[in-house]
Amino acid sequence: MYQSKLFTKTTKNISQEEQSRNAQLLVRGGFVDRLTAGVYSFLPLGLRVMKKIENIIREEMNKVDGQEIFMPALCPRENYDKTDRYEILAGDILFHAESKHTKNLVLNQSHEEVITPLMKKFVSSYKDLPLAVYQFQDKFRAEPRPKSGVLRGREFIMKDLYSFHISQDDLDIYYDKVTDAYRRIFDRSGVGKETYLTYASGGSFSKYSHEFQTLTEAGEDIIYLCRDCQVAVNKEIIEDQAGKCPLCAKEELEQLKSAEVGNIFKLGTRFSDSFNLTVLNEKGESSPVIMGCYGIGLQRLMGTIVEIFNDDKGIIWPEAVAPFKVHLISLDQNENANKLYQKLIEAGVEVLFDDRESVGAGQKFAEADLIGCPWRVVLSQKTTTAGQVEIKSRGDEKVEYITEEALVKKLLG
Amino acid sequence: MYQSKLFTKTTKNISQEEQSRNAQLLVRGGFVDRLTAGVYSFLPLGLRVMKKIENIIREEMNKVDGQEIFMPALCPRENYDKTDRYEILAGDILFHAESKHTKNLVLNQSHEEVITPLMKKFVSSYKDLPLAVYQFQDKFRAEPRPKSGVLRGREFIMKDLYSFHISQDDLDIYYDKVTDAYRRIFDRSGVGKETYLTYASGGSFSKYSHEFQTLTEAGEDIIYLCRDCQVAVNKEIIEDQAGKCPLCAKEELEQLKSAEVGNIFKLGTRFSDSFNLTVLNEKGESSPVIMGCYGIGLQRLMGTIVEIFNDDKGIIWPEAVAPFKVHLISLDQNENANKLYQKLIEAGVEVLFDDRESVGAGQKFAEADLIGCPWRVVLSQKTTTAGQVEIKSRGDEKVEYITEEALVKKLLG
Repeated sequence: MYQSKLFTKTTKNISQEEQSRNAQLLVRGGFVDRLTAGVYSFLPLGLRVMKKIENIIREEMNKVDGQEIFMPALCPRENYDKTDRYEILAGDILFHAESKHTKNLVLNQSHEEVITPLMKKFVSSYKDLPLAVYQFQDKFRAEPRPKSGVLRGREFIMKDLYSFHISQDDLDIYYDKVTDAYRRIFDRSGVGKETYLTYASGGSFSKYSHEFQTLTEAGEDIIYLCRDCQVAVNKEIIEDQAGKCPLCAKEELEQLKSAEVGNIFKLGTRFSDSFNLTVLNEKGESSPVIMGCYGIGLQRLMGTIVEIFNDDKGIIWPEAVAPFKVHLISLDQNENANKLYQKLIEAGVEVLFDDRESVGAGQKFAEADLIGCPWRVVLSQKTTTAGQVEIKSRGDEKVEYITEEALVKKLLG
Repeated sequence: MYQSKLFTKTTKNISQEEQSRNAQLLVRGGFVDRLTAGVYSFLPLGLRVMKKIENIIREEMNKVDGQEIFMPALCPRENYDKTDRYEILAGDILFHAESKHTKNLVLNQSHEEVITPLMKKFVSSYKDLPLAVYQFQDKFRAEPRPKSGVLRGREFIMKDLYSFHISQDDLDIYYDKVTDAYRRIFDRSGVGKETYLTYASGGSFSKYSHEFQTLTEAGEDIIYLCRDCQVAVNKEIIEDQAGKCPLCAKEELEQLKSAEVGNIFKLGTRFSDSFNLTVLNEKGESSPVIMGCYGIGLQRLMGTIVEIFNDDKGIIWPEAVAPFKVHLISLDQNENANKLYQKLIEAGVEVLFDDRESVGAGQKFAEADLIGCPWRVVLSQKTTTAGQVEIKSRGDEKVEYITEEALVKKLLG
C-alpha cells in the first residue's frame, strides 16, 4: 500500500485517558481510534493485524473440525432467564438493547444462550456427536472502568468455539485437542513463549477451567507459575491449591502479572440442562449433551502482543501478525522505489511503501519504528548509486546493504 | 465438505411466522436460523454465501480506492445529539444500549456519527482528499414489524462506504464511480438484470438519492420503471416527478414491486457541518468537507437473490454466491465418490459431498435441489460401471453423462 494514500497519520496527541501502553502505541501509530471508554474503531493498519490474528485462529479452529457460523448480537432476555444468568449479568456487565418497537432484548456477552437452543434443532442422536461450532462475533460487556486499552473493551470480537459430546470422556479428548490448538495459535501469534496454561476457577461447572495467561506487567491477573511444569495457577484459586503446583505439588511458585489471552471451559450439562438439550444414546435412552466452550478475544490478544513487543520507539510486530511484512522507505527515490515495490508485490510480499514526498528522512524512520513492520527497507541516493538497498530488522539496530535480488530472496525465505 | 459432518440438516418444520419465501427456503435448507423476529444466526451454508457476497463487495470497494476499517456498534448518544438525529431516531428504530455501568450509549443504525468525527482527526488539508473508507459491520435497527425474512432484519451486516471531497464536482465524479462499482457488484451476484438504478428522495441533503432496486414480488418498495432508459423512480417521489422518467420524460412507466439492495447518497455537508469537519483549501481558506455515503445490506442482498432464484424444489444459487459449486452425491459409491471428491478439491473446486450412508437417493436429490448448488454430480452403480458420472445443472432438467476428466474440465471452464 502507498503510504501517501493511507488516510491515517501517526500522532503524538493522545487522550489523557489512555494510560495503557498498548492503547498509547496503537493510537499513536494510527491502528485504532478511541470513540469512548472501552470502545475503539479499527483503522486500516489495525484491521490488517486483526485479520491476521483472525485467520490464524480460523485455520486452527478448522483443524479441530470447528464449523464456522455467525450468531446475532441481539438475544431475547428469556434465553438468559432460562439459564438463570439474567439476574447476575444484568446487575453487572449485561447490556439491554432498548427501543420503541422492541422489548426484552439484550446484547450477548457470550453465546451459550444462543448456541444451546440452536443445537437442539439439529442434534437428536449420539450419532450427531461430537461436533463443534465457532464464530467471530462482537461481544458486548459493560465493563465498569475499562482502563487497559484494547485489552478490555466494552465491545470486542471474540472467537468462541462450542463443543458438544455424548460423554465426559469424549469432551476430555476434544478439550485436549483444543488446548493444543490454542498453544499453536499463541505460538503463531508470537506470544507462545510468554503464555502459560493456567488453572483457574471452574465456576459451578467443573473443578478447574483453564486460562492461557501471557506474562506482562499490563495484565490484570496475577498467576503463580511453576517453571518446572510450565503451568500456572490463577491467584483466585491459589489458596484452594494450598499454594502448590497442581501437577508436581511444588510450593516455590513465582508470582507474576499476566493477561488472560484465552480460556477454555468444561461446561458439562450446565447449559444443556437449561434448554433440555439431550440426545438418544446407543441404548436408545435420553442423555444430556456434555458441552465445552473455548474463547479468545481478538483485541485482547492484539493488545497483549503490543504490550510484549515494543520499545521506546514503538511497536515491534511479530511477522505473522504484522500489518505489513516490509516498510519500504523512499528518500527522494520514488521511481526506483516504486519499481522495487511492484517487484515485491508481485512476489507476494506485503509492503507499506512510504512514497510521501514532503516528509523528511528522520520522520519517515521514526514513523516506521512506531508502526513496527518487521523489515525496514530504504532506497536513497546512496544505496541506488551502489545498486543496493538498505535493510534493517525492526528488532535490531544492525543495517545491511544488499542487492534487490538478495532482498527478494531474503523476504521470501 | 463432507455432508455427513455438516451439523445442519434440512427441515420441513419452520416457524409459522416465517411468511417470506426467502426465510422459508433459507431456514428449510439450513442456511439460517431464526432466533427471534428479525434476528437470525447464519449457519455454515449461509455464512459461506455471506462471505462470497462480502468478498465480491470488498473487491469492488478496493477498486474504487476504499480503505477498509471496522467501527464499533456502540456510540455515545452525544454524537447523535450533535447531528440532531437523536430525537428522530430514538422515536423510531434506534436501540439504546443500557447497562448498570454505562449510560447514554446507543447502537449505530448507520455510521455517519462515528466516521465524521473520526475523519476530523486525520483530515486537515485539501491534499488529504479525496478519500473513501468502508467497513462490514453489524447495524442495529429496531424495525417495528420485521416480516420479510432476512430482507429486513433488526440486526444485519452492512457494507457502508463513506467518501470525503473538497468539492461537489469531486463528489459527483466519485459518486459515478461507485455507481459503476455497484452495478458490477449486482451483476457479479447474479441480480444485475433485475436491478435498476432508481431515483429516490434525497432527504434534506440533495434533490435525489439513488437506490438500486431489484424487481421481486417480495420487495417492500414500489418503483416506476422506464424501460427505454433502464432507470426507475421510487413511488415516494413519483408525484414530485409528475409521473415522468427523470431522463427522457416519458410518462408510460411500469409500476413494479422491488427490493432495495443498495443505496447511494450525496450527503453534502449535512454531517461535516455537525462536527465542523473542514479542511484548508488551495487558497488556505477553511472549507467544509463534502461527503457521500453508499450502503449495501448483505443479508438483504442474499435474501433478494433467493427470492429471484428459486423454484418449487428450492433455491437455485448463482454460481458466484453459491455455498458450493458442486453437490456431489454418492449412491452407495462412497469409495469412488471420495476419490472424485479429493480430485475436485485438489483442482480448486468447492464441493459439498453427500457421503451419508443411511440416506436414500430420493432424499439426497430433494435436499440437493433445496440447497441449490449450481451443479449436481451423481455417482451410482450405473455410472461407475460405465466409467462415467452424471451431471445436472440445478436450473436445468437435462442430465448428462460424462467421464471424470470431462467433468473436471467442465467445472474449471
